[in-house]
Amino acid sequence: MPRYVDHDARRREVADIAAKLIAQVGVERLTVRELAKAAGYSTAIVSHYFSDKRQLLLFTYREAALNAQARVNEVLENSPEDLEGCLGALLPCNEERRREWHVWFAFWGMAIGDPEFAEEQRRRMRGSLKLIQTVLERMAKKGLIAGDADFELLASQFLTVLNGMAVQVGFDPDDWPEARQRKMLKRAVDQILRDA
Amino acid sequence: MPRYVDHDARRREVADIAAKLIAQVGVERLTVRELAKAAGYSTAIVSHYFSDKRQLLLFTYREAALNAQARVNEVLENSPEDLEGCLGALLPCNEERRREWHVWFAFWGMAIGDPEFAEEQRRRMRGSLKLIQTVLERMAKKGLIAGDADFELLASQFLTVLNGMAVQVGFDPDDWPEARQRKMLKRAVDQILRDA
Repeated sequence: MPRYVDHDARRREVADIAAKLIAQVGVERLTVRELAKAAGYSTAIVSHYFSDKRQLLLFTYREAALNAQARVNEVLENSPEDLEGCLGALLPCNEERRREWHVWFAFWGMAIGDPEFAEEQRRRMRGSLKLIQTVLERMAKKGLIAGDADFELLASQFLTVLNGMAVQVGFDPDDWPEARQRKMLKRAVDQILRDA
Repeated sequence: MPRYVDHDARRREVADIAAKLIAQVGVERLTVRELAKAAGYSTAIVSHYFSDKRQLLLFTYREAALNAQARVNEVLENSPEDLEGCLGALLPCNEERRREWHVWFAFWGMAIGDPEFAEEQRRRMRGSLKLIQTVLERMAKKGLIAGDADFELLASQFLTVLNGMAVQVGFDPDDWPEARQRKMLKRAVDQILRDA
């Protein structure tokens, strides 16, 4: 047995199980007690990491965001101007990513009427917009789009496409195999960039 | 005093107060008891209309959808091919409509892990897609778009734009005055229809 518990790893492990539980039983029925049972820990241990449900959901949300960010970073390391690749890395086209979106939908639902959560979501969205703008500026430098394009407007359009598709896919996954998602994304990117 | 209570009207009245409460305190803290207090009825009366929170949220969701539908119908009665008008009637550009979207976000959050809610949401989205397709078919008959356009794909794109914008606006309303929403919608509609 290890002498020291890796608390960060355990917190992440518990958050991962929380994400699965949200997809299975819903955020309404997710409790620290239920989570402890699913994770095989005592309620006391889980309570040590998450004092209440809000803290649990907040951490789970941030974990999902970190995972998503890591995938986007990987795309950008290889090709710093690959906007479609970035957005594609966030599409809910497999189990893991659908779970991320489930966590986000659950969080959005909780953020209504919860100023702290709403602020977190706003900050996160603005961060995404900024990242998309950075990629667009790189594209402009390479001459792939016009240097005087309205990067802010374009970034908003791309975030719209991503969130809007994810809502449709999230509640109708059978209708949205990966190929359809990618085709739709490509089409939207082409249409939006044609004006840039 | 009226001899007979208009139960439908009272149910709608209570659902309207529920929608306001969701925006104020969040779906997590919305309870039949809390709602009764806000509505000025006894818990027993509210429980008569809504046996539990799920029934309450389902009814509130459907009421919001009916109100939205009524606005879209009004647009279509005057101009049956006005796609941008239909979508515009759903933008979260005033208090009432932002509240509708708040109810929808709350419902989406609850629908994760709740098969009955998820099915309701899926049915509702497919209904929206069908309505958009109908408008597109009318546009094709009038020669406004090509008769062999992929109506299903186009409808998906339009629903994507609407949902995606609403998410951005919903959590960042200060950044999205009505004029910006309408400008962005017009731009997206033009871009999408250019290929149709």
